[in-house]
Amino acid sequence: MDRNAVISTRSTSAADAPAVHPVAAHLEKAITLAVDSVANAGGPFGAVIVTRDGRVVEGNNRVTQDNDPTAHAEVTAIRRACAELGTFDLSGAVLYSSCEPCPMCLASALWARVDAVYFAADRHDAAAAGFDDAEFYDFFAGRLGDRPETGATGRGMTVRHERTRSAVAPFDAWRVLETRIDY
Amino acid sequence: MDRNAVISTRSTSAADAPAVHPVAAHLEKAITLAVDSVANAGGPFGAVIVTRDGRVVEGNNRVTQDNDPTAHAEVTAIRRACAELGTFDLSGAVLYSSCEPCPMCLASALWARVDAVYFAADRHDAAAAGFDDAEFYDFFAGRLGDRPETGATGRGMTVRHERTRSAVAPFDAWRVLETRIDY
Repeated sequence: MDRNAVISTRSTSAADAPAVHPVAAHLEKAITLAVDSVANAGGPFGAVIVTRDGRVVEGNNRVTQDNDPTAHAEVTAIRRACAELGTFDLSGAVLYSSCEPCPMCLASALWARVDAVYFAADRHDAAAAGFDDAEFYDFFAGRLGDRPETGATGRGMTVRHERTRSAVAPFDAWRVLETRIDY
Repeated sequence: MDRNAVISTRSTSAADAPAVHPVAAHLEKAITLAVDSVANAGGPFGAVIVTRDGRVVEGNNRVTQDNDPTAHAEVTAIRRACAELGTFDLSGAVLYSSCEPCPMCLASALWARVDAVYFAADRHDAAAAGFDDAEFYDFFAGRLGDRPETGATGRGMTVRHERTRSAVAPFDAWRVLETRIDY
């Protein structure tokens, strides 16, 4: 995708009105969702997905409400968009987040195959508010070398590779499955 | 956690039976879940969480079944364990996965505060079977420097920071919220 193409797009819905930058407008909506989330017992994060066909799907952080540590705003919006569209593939969609997606949310966006992610605040703003996004990025930094286990002590979570004889049996079964749905 | 303490633990439930390594036993269960998943229209991944109180919670990959790109085996197990225990905090739990957790799943484990993660196959086995885990780890490698946006073209997903005036408004609201639940 040509980034400049996205950035230079302008609203032309009202010729006499001031041009509203569509990226800024969607980010503002994500931020409003984040502020509203705080007022409604959610975490201070909001997200908007605009699907390929122009559908707008919202999400907010629901970790403590839903007892789901994966219910970040971006993941919530991705799940909802997929449920609405009846697909696991959001190709052509754009994700707007009030804050830089954490590694979980960024990888969720990768798996969902969204085209682009825009965010307003960043991991350092989140850290200043008490959230571990920046620390978790640092944890990943220690796991990206040839010996990823050396980064395993990043924040006290042990990560170990214990290869067993049957380790690749699931992939062997997958390869010969004629009805498999690749994703 | 002392890794050696975990690795050297042996089953003592039957003095005359061969010692069964508990990590290996849980990994074998995760692999069995992965093989069964393939036979039941799921992806070739399985996971087991053993909670602090000894509860065993299972998960398998349900991406295509549930139209949820985040429904990896580990995430599914984390969500189930949290739902069963009525908490967003799995401190004291251990996650066993048939394959190395992708960045989404590893970060989910961090947010869930599990103590340890063990896996059998790795990202390269997954890549050989057609999955993007290794590629997504590489994507993260490009986002961990001082200018993370330079890694944004890893697999065609644009990631951009567009700071707006109201970017930190949600965190300002969060800081002054007396009823907030930190996580």
